[in-house]
Parts: sequence; C-alpha cells; structure tokens
Amino acid sequence: MYGLIGRMIATEGRREELMAILKASAGGRMPGCHSYIVARCKEHPDGIWVTEVWDSPESHTASLELTAVQDAIAQARPLIAGFDNRFETEPVGGIGL
Amino acid sequence: MYGLIGRMIATEGRREELMAILKASAGGRMPGCHSYIVARCKEHPDGIWVTEVWDSPESHTASLELTAVQDAIAQARPLIAGFDNRFETEPVGGIGL
Repeated sequence: MYGLIGRMIATEGRREELMAILKASAGGRMPGCHSYIVARCKEHPDGIWVTEVWDSPESHTASLELTAVQDAIAQARPLIAGFDNRFETEPVGGIGL
Repeated sequence: MYGLIGRMIATEGRREELMAILKASAGGRMPGCHSYIVARCKEHPDGIWVTEVWDSPESHTASLELTAVQDAIAQARPLIAGFDNRFETEPVGGIGL
C-alpha cells in the first residue's frame, strides 16, 4: 500500500471552507483509496492534516485526474497558503483500511 | 473526533517486529477507535508512522488501560528508540472512518 501524511496551510481564516472542499472531494468514488482523512490541526490555527492510504502510488496519481478531484483542486487553490509537512509511507495494516 | 499522528523510531533493525506488535494490538476491540493505521516511513529506515482517529480523547486514554494494549506496550517498549513527531488533530471526515 501507499500512504501520504501532509499538512496544508489554509489562507488566514479560510480553513473551514478548505476542509469542506477536501471532504467533498473525498465523497465521490476514488478507485484504490482505502483511507482519506481530513483533520483540523491543533497546533496551527490554519493547519489541515490529510492522511491517505491507497492500494498503490499509481492509484493515487490517477485520482488526481478525476474530474471531481480536478474541480476540488481548482476550488481549493485560492484558499491554500502552503504545505509544510509531507511524508510518504507504506501502510502495513490496522483499523479503518 | 480526536486524532493523533506520530512517528515512532524502532531500535535499529527491529522495525518489522515492532510494527507486527502494533498491528496485533489494533486487532482486538478498541472501543471508540475509528482508525488506527501502522505504516513504514519511507524517509527513515527505522521510522513507523501511526495515525489514529478516536471518537474522543477519553476513548483514546481508556484504550491505554486495555489488557491487550498494556501487553503490547510491554512487548514494544524494548524495541522503541524514541518518538520524533507527534501531532494532535481534530478529524472532520473523509474515507475510512
């Protein structure tokens, strides 16, 4: 499996809007996606953690071409100030996969 | 909801053993646990990422008293060299919850 752990920084005061877009984009079918969790960061007032598990890196890359995801990226882009943490992982198991 | 994202560092060469203990500890019933994912870190050869989602901080704290978890902690302790990333989050939704 292929995993990503990343923190996105919303433009000031726009975190809730941005999280809503991310959640909505995960609402549709994303082939190969086992887990995609959006979470408010407790340390940073504009921080959003997204943790993902895919069956392969290819499935993750292919998801970026989905219309729903492309639309979400376009909507989200003006609300994103940056990214300051990004880790690639290899999930091996657990609850919620 | 309450979330945790953390990286655990295994003692050199013992990552696979430690991950097996973590996976096994998540195999039993953990009331209030929506997600508990164990993953190999790609950057650090002894790094293990654990991402968790609970319905409340109290459920997470209570899980540490479960016999299965206490046993796992005792088994794991000699194989843990340290922790070098720990973030608390507030999950808001997604896939796999």
